[in-house]
Amino acid sequence: MKQQITIGIDIGGTNTKIGVVSPNGKVLANNRIATTDYPKIEGFVAALDLEIRQLLEKAGEVELTAIGIGAPNGNYLKGTIEQATNLQWKGIVPLCDLLKKYFSVPVVLTNDAKAAALGEMIYGGAKGMKNFILLTLGTGLGSGVVINGELVYGKTGFAGELGHLTMEPFGRECGCGREGCLETYVSSTGIVKTVFELFAERRDPSPLRKIPYDLLTSKMIADAAEEGDQIALAAFEQTAETLATAICNMAAFCSPEAIFLFGGLTQSGDLLLDPLKRFVDENIMGYYRRSFKILPSKLAEADAAILGASALAVKAITQ
Amino acid sequence: MKQQITIGIDIGGTNTKIGVVSPNGKVLANNRIATTDYPKIEGFVAALDLEIRQLLEKAGEVELTAIGIGAPNGNYLKGTIEQATNLQWKGIVPLCDLLKKYFSVPVVLTNDAKAAALGEMIYGGAKGMKNFILLTLGTGLGSGVVINGELVYGKTGFAGELGHLTMEPFGRECGCGREGCLETYVSSTGIVKTVFELFAERRDPSPLRKIPYDLLTSKMIADAAEEGDQIALAAFEQTAETLATAICNMAAFCSPEAIFLFGGLTQSGDLLLDPLKRFVDENIMGYYRRSFKILPSKLAEADAAILGASALAVKAITQ
Repeated sequence: MKQQITIGIDIGGTNTKIGVVSPNGKVLANNRIATTDYPKIEGFVAALDLEIRQLLEKAGEVELTAIGIGAPNGNYLKGTIEQATNLQWKGIVPLCDLLKKYFSVPVVLTNDAKAAALGEMIYGGAKGMKNFILLTLGTGLGSGVVINGELVYGKTGFAGELGHLTMEPFGRECGCGREGCLETYVSSTGIVKTVFELFAERRDPSPLRKIPYDLLTSKMIADAAEEGDQIALAAFEQTAETLATAICNMAAFCSPEAIFLFGGLTQSGDLLLDPLKRFVDENIMGYYRRSFKILPSKLAEADAAILGASALAVKAITQ
Repeated sequence: MKQQITIGIDIGGTNTKIGVVSPNGKVLANNRIATTDYPKIEGFVAALDLEIRQLLEKAGEVELTAIGIGAPNGNYLKGTIEQATNLQWKGIVPLCDLLKKYFSVPVVLTNDAKAAALGEMIYGGAKGMKNFILLTLGTGLGSGVVINGELVYGKTGFAGELGHLTMEPFGRECGCGREGCLETYVSSTGIVKTVFELFAERRDPSPLRKIPYDLLTSKMIADAAEEGDQIALAAFEQTAETLATAICNMAAFCSPEAIFLFGGLTQSGDLLLDPLKRFVDENIMGYYRRSFKILPSKLAEADAAILGASALAVKAITQ
């Protein structure tokens, strides 16, 4: 009997990753194409078709059951990518409909962070959980909210944009056109901003002071913190405090079993996680005290995007 | 054929209301007992039993299908009232189990605001909606969150405590032991606090300045605002602004179809609703712009608590 597999596709601004995924979450074959090579969506879809067929051949005796796609500004309800500023296809792109012309299996799409949450549920640390949140801390802060075993899409399909919780009215300018959003504080770009604020506020010497704003990365801040740099440590502390406030609010909203953290900023050992847990313990409302865990994602960074998209496909055929 | 009815019970610190409710949301018969007359829960349950049997008789040819209860700190998952500071029964009270000894129908319990949200869904303005939030603005701020057609209880049963979203770290002291919670700003007690802050900040003359803190009510503030009192108007404006920030965050969380407002503070004509809609329009993220309505509850205040509890019973037998 052929092994029933799904295809996971992760569309990024630069590269698109495509993988053949087995039911137990093993990536049997994968490849990538350059997203930027295809100024027209039709050309991109034709390239996806070709790539998928080659991968299926490579994977051997398999039967394709469904295709899942994670994409910036992906709208699950409509199967479209909408006004994605990082992609060259403008307006509303009906990607699912276009790809369905090539394949007679379900094709589903959502944004990358929501796909990652499903990946955690189907293949990762959230197996068996009905209520949890995954936060991806990268350039911005993405999120997927699962309630009663289902991803929350809401009326618009764009529920779960927790990076845009207002943490400080009249706070830092956000790419969304508003101010004080969580992702302007808690993300790899947010912690850089925090370091620069701390340069102004404090007198601690720090080798980071020699690095211009445009060149400072969260990795450099993490490395400095590991060396005991006071500014860098304070930046992690502040980042953790802001995230803790947001997490306490998330608990008041949906009382989850766990909050999963994914992405570069959370891989800095316990630099973020330790103060985060401390601030949450100090500030959580009585109802929720010790009722949920804060955990690093169990998906390996390299495969997470493909596994997330694959999980979306799995969900589509098992409901 | 007998009409199939539910019983709705609303337990308050002072009174407990009991009503017989028809399938279309008509209260066929109702009564109340003094909650405070029963220092022991067993006595209270026996009194409920007696009262329910009398009401069923009074209602005529009816068949009881289920009993729903709204109570402070009601835990739906366990059927218990837990550590309710406004009630004299301490600790964890297994109310559903106790009442089931008297009746052979489903008995379900949740907190009053969650019951009110279900009342809105079954009998009120949220009929047919799958995603909405109801906020009750009274002494505190209660809430019920409905996602994918289901009330959100979360892991603990205490999800949806939106009155305890942190709006301002190190802000006003809250009864929950924390600081800056939404309900310390947006509630009938919150707006009183805001007026007293405004007395300090501004020089506008106002007849309200003659009223001591302990005697000032939100009704007096509403009346003064209707007369053009600048302090009172500013207090409604500030209350609306804080609530707008919270509502924008709720949209980012679950992208609802509507936010319903219930309770005294929202009945002050458009004093709250007009600035609230304006602030939301100004601050909402693009995804959600004009995607949801802010509406007053459609349930009459007098019947709402009984209808909410009844709706919980209806949900229990229709799933």
